[in-house]
Amino acid sequence: MNNLDNIDFSKIKFVLMDMDGVLTDGTVLYSSDGEEIIKVFSVYDGYGIERGHRHGLKFAIISGRSAKANEHRARKLKIDILYQDCGDKVAAYNEIMKKFGLERDNFCYIGDEIFDLPLLNEVMFSCAPANAVDEVKEAVDYVAIKEGGKGAVREIIDLILRKRNLI
Amino acid sequence: MNNLDNIDFSKIKFVLMDMDGVLTDGTVLYSSDGEEIIKVFSVYDGYGIERGHRHGLKFAIISGRSAKANEHRARKLKIDILYQDCGDKVAAYNEIMKKFGLERDNFCYIGDEIFDLPLLNEVMFSCAPANAVDEVKEAVDYVAIKEGGKGAVREIIDLILRKRNLI
Amino acid sequence: MNNLDNIDFSKIKFVLMDMDGVLTDGTVLYSSDGEEIIKVFSVYDGYGIERGHRHGLKFAIISGRSAKANEHRARKLKIDILYQDCGDKVAAYNEIMKKFGLERDNFCYIGDEIFDLPLLNEVMFSCAPANAVDEVKEAVDYVAIKEGGKGAVREIIDLILRKRNLI
Amino acid sequence: MNNLDNIDFSKIKFVLMDMDGVLTDGTVLYSSDGEEIIKVFSVYDGYGIERGHRHGLKFAIISGRSAKANEHRARKLKIDILYQDCGDKVAAYNEIMKKFGLERDNFCYIGDEIFDLPLLNEVMFSCAPANAVDEVKEAVDYVAIKEGGKGAVREIIDLILRKRNLI
Repeated sequence: MNNLDNIDFSKIKFVLMDMDGVLTDGTVLYSSDGEEIIKVFSVYDGYGIERGHRHGLKFAIISGRSAKANEHRARKLKIDILYQDCGDKVAAYNEIMKKFGLERDNFCYIGDEIFDLPLLNEVMFSCAPANAVDEVKEAVDYVAIKEGGKGAVREIIDLILRKRNLI
Repeated sequence: MNNLDNIDFSKIKFVLMDMDGVLTDGTVLYSSDGEEIIKVFSVYDGYGIERGHRHGLKFAIISGRSAKANEHRARKLKIDILYQDCGDKVAAYNEIMKKFGLERDNFCYIGDEIFDLPLLNEVMFSCAPANAVDEVKEAVDYVAIKEGGKGAVREIIDLILRKRNLI
Repeated sequence: MNNLDNIDFSKIKFVLMDMDGVLTDGTVLYSSDGEEIIKVFSVYDGYGIERGHRHGLKFAIISGRSAKANEHRARKLKIDILYQDCGDKVAAYNEIMKKFGLERDNFCYIGDEIFDLPLLNEVMFSCAPANAVDEVKEAVDYVAIKEGGKGAVREIIDLILRKRNLI
Repeated sequence: MNNLDNIDFSKIKFVLMDMDGVLTDGTVLYSSDGEEIIKVFSVYDGYGIERGHRHGLKFAIISGRSAKANEHRARKLKIDILYQDCGDKVAAYNEIMKKFGLERDNFCYIGDEIFDLPLLNEVMFSCAPANAVDEVKEAVDYVAIKEGGKGAVREIIDLILRKRNLI
């Protein structure tokens, strides 16, 4: 992990992100109404994505679960593509690649769980938040200092922009 | 504590869990509406239970309190049995043993409070999250590194599966 | 602080508590509806108060603010007396003393803020959670290891019960 | 940072504050209803602002975003001026200066983000909470020990009042 020698940051065009534990802190709040009503996000990630957009990056969320709160957050963040209830994240990635005419070297993926490993192994630049499970932290190119829902996504976007001398 | 020598992990078939402080972080959020509306759970526990189920483990929640949020979470996690407002946890355990034709060696229990001690003393494999009260931490076979509602349950399920070479 | 030599624990009959920062973690959550809807409490405090009640202790909340969530929590905890919007905490204390025929030596008060100092200076046993402001931490007999809304009240009740050999 | 030699605390009359990450902890909670419903504030900041008001300080919130929860919190705190969706914070500051007949030396600003830098560079006393981004922490006169939404604002107000021997 944290081996950035093989990463050609100038080629990254698309940042793919898992939702729970990456854009959130991995907690889910249930109300007495019976809905998984509340998710905890970070304003720091929001500004990171906004700045990434301004510098031409695109963003997708690929989540194995679904929640209405996710959709609202994705809309607010102007996320380019949102996959929910996604059973095969590599298939979603292949779809995005095809749709945008991109290749492996154009992708970064940020994931935290066992089921993120197949896609993490596909993309050029694989990342995890500090709270990822050990198997993921051992497999990725970069483990963020910050946790999911607490600025990990912002940290990774800023790293990409900084490596390209954009900020 | 943390004495795993006497545990025959191959026999564990049922993981019993307390709710507050084990599947949640022990906080309860009250709204102005007067209901204990919100409980804080972890997606990491969710995936741990899902993977445990796939490997044949069964799960019960035995809670001394009750809350609608608990029921919703239990349903989402496909928990096999849910006891709420349970005044005698050992009696609930005996019921489960009878119903499923199991014995002491087939059970793990995860608890964090004084009133969890009687059941913790019954089962073969007794566990506590990092935030358990001292009396419980001193009494159990295994104290998780993680806290309740922050992955302690996942850690214990993964330990069981790893000891059985299933993951 | 943390000078327990002058405390006659056998005399304590009433535990007075501030609300925000003592029974809560000092956060207030506002919704878009415009109400201070949500407060964060701890189940550990709940069990501490329940056990204190069983051993004959009485409990009052004396809060300088008010919130509906507080009332619901106070009812759930079976708090004996609740003062809200209380501008003069010493006056409330005098009322309680009169009503229950008690004297200074029968009282513990747990507070965290500047405006708690007058009452903290009145009672025999003055306490603060770990998150109290410095001026309060320097003035009280006992500073809890735990924070408000995370078990500080439980820790103090358990200390009282333990000093009296009740647990 | 933390160079207080050039600050004439006796001149400070107005404390300007960013909202997210300063008066809140930078988290935003989304519900399934689709609204950014909940923000997390600190009661410690509330009492700090109240005490600041009593000693003649004025307070403004200048936020680049907007949320109904912010308005409710601002009203509760009796904030003198609230700017939301503010694209040019320096312009807002100039407006306040004009309206109240004040000058640069009368202002403190507390911000945590890149887009707070222009205004932080304008005022006499620039501050940041502990959770501010690195670029901001390097640029300001004072970095609080506490985090936004956890008492950073209170800490800075108390510092101003203490330097003026008011508390």
